Amino acid sequence: MANRMVKDKNDVADKQSRILQAARAEFAEKGFDGARVDSIAERAQANKQLIYYYFVNKDQLFTRVLEEAYRDKRQQEAALDLDRFPANEAILQLVDFTWHYYLKNPEFIRLLNSENQLKARHLQGLDSPVELNRSWIDITQGLLERGWRENNVRSNIAAMQLNITISALGFFYLINQSTLSIIYQTDLGEQSALDEHLRVMKECVAAWIRP
Amino acid sequence: MANRMVKDKNDVADKQSRILQAARAEFAEKGFDGARVDSIAERAQANKQLIYYYFVNKDQLFTRVLEEAYRDKRQQEAALDLDRFPANEAILQLVDFTWHYYLKNPEFIRLLNSENQLKARHLQGLDSPVELNRSWIDITQGLLERGWRENNVRSNIAAMQLNITISALGFFYLINQSTLSIIYQTDLGEQSALDEHLRVMKECVAAWIRP
Repeated sequence: MANRMVKDKNDVADKQSRILQAARAEFAEKGFDGARVDSIAERAQANKQLIYYYFVNKDQLFTRVLEEAYRDKRQQEAALDLDRFPANEAILQLVDFTWHYYLKNPEFIRLLNSENQLKARHLQGLDSPVELNRSWIDITQGLLERGWRENNVRSNIAAMQLNITISALGFFYLINQSTLSIIYQTDLGEQSALDEHLRVMKECVAAWIRP
Repeated sequence: MANRMVKDKNDVADKQSRILQAARAEFAEKGFDGARVDSIAERAQANKQLIYYYFVNKDQLFTRVLEEAYRDKRQQEAALDLDRFPANEAILQLVDFTWHYYLKNPEFIRLLNSENQLKARHLQGLDSPVELNRSWIDITQGLLERGWRENNVRSNIAAMQLNITISALGFFYLINQSTLSIIYQTDLGEQSALDEHLRVMKECVAAWIRP
C-alpha cells in the first residue's frame, strides 16, 4: 500500500516534470502569446485536461516554467564554489558561467524576452519574486565585499550593477546574433567568434572592477 | 503643369512617410507576426490597397521600416561632431548618445527584437545590409585609431567589439526593464536609476578602453 502511494507520487512528479519541459520548449519557441496548450500536450504526450488539472491555466503554467528557469540558473550559480578564487577572479568566473549558461540554455533568454514583452505580468503575480534573484545578489555582494578586503575590486560598484553588466554583455550578443551577423558580415555563432566575445567580456569586466 | 507634378510628388512622399510611421508603431508594438496591415492602414488613415501599391506586402513594408530605423540612427551618429573631443572622451559620447537614442526611440529596440525572432530574414533579403552599419563602424574605427595615436585608448580593441559592448550595456537594461525591476525590487525606469545606469556604462567603457 505504501509502495503504491510512493509509486503514484513519483508518477505525478514525472508527469508534471514532462509537462513543464514541454511547456518550456513551446513557450521559448513561440513566446507566451504564440504558444498553444494543445501543442504542449502533444509535446508532453499528456492529456490536455491533465495540464489544466495540475497547472490551472496557460498563465500559471508559464509562471511555473519561468520560476523553474530562474531556479535552475540560481542552483548552478550556487554550486560554482567560488571561494577557491581571489574575489576579482571569482567575478570573472561568473562572467564565464553566465555566458556558458546562456549558450547551453537558449530557452532562458527567450522566456525572459517573452515575459518582458508582457511587462513581466507573471513575475508580478508572484508572492516573493525577489526570492528568484536573492542568491545571485548574495553571491555577487559577497564577492564585492571580499574583493574590497582583498583590495582587488574597486569599491564603488553595487551588486545589481555588476549583475546587470555581466548579463548584458552576453545576453545582447546572443539575442541579436542574427541581425549582428548580417550587418557585420561575420557569423557570430561560430566557435571562434563566441570565444572571442567571451574574452572581450572578461577583459571589459576585469578592467572595470580593477581598484 | 510643373507645379502640379511637384505637388503630386510631395503628396506621394507624404503618404508614404505617414504609412511608414504607422507601420513602425504597429510593428514595434505587436512584432512582425502580430502586426496587421489593416491596423497600419487605420493608423495611417490610408487605404489598404495603397499600402500594397507602394510597399507590395507586409514583409517588404517591414523591411523598409527596419531600414529607415537603422538609417535614422546612423544619421544622428554622423551628426555628433566627435572631432571636438579627445578620442577616449568621444567614445564616451557615443555611449551617451546610444543610451539616449534608445530611450527616445523605444521602437528601435522592439523592431530589432522582432527581426531577431525571425532570424533576420528581412535583413537577409537586402542587397547590401552591411551599408546599414557602415558609417557606425567607420566612426568607431576612426575613434579607435585616433585614440591609439593620442595614446588614450588601448590598442587591442576592434570596432565591432566596441560597438557591441556599447549597445549591449544599454539595450539589455531597457529590454529587460520589467523583469529586472521586479526581481531587484526597484523601478529601473525612474530617472535616478536611468542616470545611474548611464554613469555605470560610462565608467565600465572608460575603464575598458584605457591603455
